[in-house]
Amino acid sequence: MIKLTGYRWVPPFAQGVSRDMRVRWALEEAGLAYEDQPIGFEDRTAASHRSRQPFGQIPVFEEDGLVLFESGTIVLHIAERSTALLPSEPGARARTKTWMFAALNSVEPDIGNLADIDLFHAKEEWAKQHRPVVVDAARKRLKDLAAWIHGRDYLEDRFTAADLLMTTVLRFIRHTDLVAQIPALDAYRQRCEARPAFRKALADHMALITANAPPQTGTKQSA
Amino acid sequence: MIKLTGYRWVPPFAQGVSRDMRVRWALEEAGLAYEDQPIGFEDRTAASHRSRQPFGQIPVFEEDGLVLFESGTIVLHIAERSTALLPSEPGARARTKTWMFAALNSVEPDIGNLADIDLFHAKEEWAKQHRPVVVDAARKRLKDLAAWIHGRDYLEDRFTAADLLMTTVLRFIRHTDLVAQIPALDAYRQRCEARPAFRKALADHMALITANAPPQTGTKQSA
Repeated sequence: MIKLTGYRWVPPFAQGVSRDMRVRWALEEAGLAYEDQPIGFEDRTAASHRSRQPFGQIPVFEEDGLVLFESGTIVLHIAERSTALLPSEPGARARTKTWMFAALNSVEPDIGNLADIDLFHAKEEWAKQHRPVVVDAARKRLKDLAAWIHGRDYLEDRFTAADLLMTTVLRFIRHTDLVAQIPALDAYRQRCEARPAFRKALADHMALITANAPPQTGTKQSA
Repeated sequence: MIKLTGYRWVPPFAQGVSRDMRVRWALEEAGLAYEDQPIGFEDRTAASHRSRQPFGQIPVFEEDGLVLFESGTIVLHIAERSTALLPSEPGARARTKTWMFAALNSVEPDIGNLADIDLFHAKEEWAKQHRPVVVDAARKRLKDLAAWIHGRDYLEDRFTAADLLMTTVLRFIRHTDLVAQIPALDAYRQRCEARPAFRKALADHMALITANAPPQTGTKQSA
């Protein structure tokens, strides 16, 4: 049985976007069963976790003694055994991997910098001065991506693991309207998010979080 | 014949670290011949280049009509056909890919942010205020990486494509002493850079740049 390690609870800004979501979605698309083996955020620096994830992050994937980290690796590892995520024709397969790396290495860094500023540094002086530069960089990536997606439904000619990763990257800036400002890109995101496998993955991710919510952040109760 | 597109000339700060270096090095390790098909920096936005690289970047790899971009994809594509870069045993193969993604997605973003600040924004006020935070983030990644490499020669038990990518990431901050401050990490970098394939790739990269240097940046001439 595949075991997936994510955080058992994350605050609202990370709910639905923490990187275990990528793995859950990929496993659903591939039709592979798994069980949660979550840790607390405070456990990320423990030696037992570090031995499995040297950077003290999540997710971690484990199956038959093989331990993998890095959401990109894990999604690729799952995709390599399922044509639902990776076409079998060699050219399409190579191009899909190209777009997987593009999502993680050409789009995510600029998108991630914007999320980092807004979610963790919004009140700092350097952030106020720097944000326009970061927004411009993110917007440039989105514009290039939109030019490619214009007239297409997916990055390749069908849904692949590249669309899965790219959608999760776009979701990192859901607190802004940068994606919504580009209708073709917003439609692409919604097309991917409408997939039953995404909805199932999101529901399972949220169910775990809801079950482990700290008392003060739980559902509203009468005083 | 494999064709590699990089820039035919880059300024000194990018010489030896532009991302075509990753592909050259991988091709040398794999023993695959290739020819340069370089472009000028000003050509990156041309439609002819955008059709091959939607983000207007380099490198681009072409072979028998298959066009790939993203240095990570290209290195993986080369590695998948050479045990010199990717072990054949499934577990070691999967773990090597994990470290390839770790180099690009866990280490490079923070390292890249530091290089970006120092090389492009050093005189801006936000950069001066923000740099300590960026240095701390880069140092944290290097510390985690050093903890893993301590007592090992390579990320896995032999040189792989993961070491190739990680070394190129460490080289992005060669203008700082952050790597040199960690002897185990510096020794690792030097061990990888000492490989004949790296030396050959660097020599070929520099030969192209030297041959295409603008007049005012060429080798010193008598007046």
